[in-house]
Amino acid sequence: MRIYGDEGSGNCLKVKYVADYLGLTYAWEVIDVLKGETRTPEYLTRNPMAQIPVVEFDDGTYLAQSNAILRYLAHDSALLPADRFLNAKVDEWLFWEQYSHEPYIAVCRFHMRYLGKTAEQREPMRVERGEQALTMMESHLGSQPWLVAESFSIADISLLAYTRLAREGGFELSSRPNVMSWIARCESELGLAPAD
Amino acid sequence: MRIYGDEGSGNCLKVKYVADYLGLTYAWEVIDVLKGETRTPEYLTRNPMAQIPVVEFDDGTYLAQSNAILRYLAHDSALLPADRFLNAKVDEWLFWEQYSHEPYIAVCRFHMRYLGKTAEQREPMRVERGEQALTMMESHLGSQPWLVAESFSIADISLLAYTRLAREGGFELSSRPNVMSWIARCESELGLAPAD
Repeated sequence: MRIYGDEGSGNCLKVKYVADYLGLTYAWEVIDVLKGETRTPEYLTRNPMAQIPVVEFDDGTYLAQSNAILRYLAHDSALLPADRFLNAKVDEWLFWEQYSHEPYIAVCRFHMRYLGKTAEQREPMRVERGEQALTMMESHLGSQPWLVAESFSIADISLLAYTRLAREGGFELSSRPNVMSWIARCESELGLAPAD
Repeated sequence: MRIYGDEGSGNCLKVKYVADYLGLTYAWEVIDVLKGETRTPEYLTRNPMAQIPVVEFDDGTYLAQSNAILRYLAHDSALLPADRFLNAKVDEWLFWEQYSHEPYIAVCRFHMRYLGKTAEQREPMRVERGEQALTMMESHLGSQPWLVAESFSIADISLLAYTRLAREGGFELSSRPNVMSWIARCESELGLAPAD
């Protein structure tokens, strides 16, 4: 298996976290989005969606979209509940992450870390919705240790990727103790050093 | 089963299309987002994400996120390939829809249809990315009748919902014959009258 990605991207790191947790063997090929490397003719044959990450399997097939990759790799593992309804609740978080979390928290981080903007120069709409997303997580994690049921799953890994880097997007976590302790639990599960 | 939604929302219509196609029995409860009905304390107990659609099952459990609902309802049906890799390719389209299609095409439509903007007043970034999304679909559908493999699936239904309404968001389909014929095939499968 070969993962095309960038370790600066939470969407790519998610895939790395899951592959490492499951002990999968893979090669990592660095793709630099800022240099246009997702738009070369060769890359577009791998992923016409022109995004990272994409995974190439040993039979030459490709799979894109970080959360679709997570679901595929985690099939029949402890990271994905066998119960059909709980499995769907994992999906609920995966889709929420891509629609209501990543476009705000990850994009603010991108603007600050890669485009040199200050926290004050962030787009107000993205700041407001990013804060709402973190507040929703804080509330949910007040009553349970993991996002879905009683076990660590790809829902946690998917949300962890950018939540642990939220400060780089100008978002404050210190007022959100439930999110902070959940991040620490996830990092412990994955054997990661604290993000800062 | 009870579906909380709004028939003006493609995200809600997706769920209706799948439920109808599979012959599921359900009640439809209208929720008006513009009146703040997704933010009432009662609604937030159903879906803390404060979005439509949400489905309530007969045992009192809830499931949110349109594409998570589609996956759950379509389990073990002809709308979701049994093959594990093809199943993941369906996921690829579902996540792409929420990240790279809906925020541009559906949001432009919302701005024009509900907020009274003209096509010229749309946000240029959303127009550009919506056009890119339609171009990607046009290319993909040039070599196959359905988005994944040889059969109609929830990937088609998910993408259909807002693509068939793209003109309401100021996007032109007439220059995209593959998308237009795919829309007609999907509408035929679902027994829908053409959108316009």
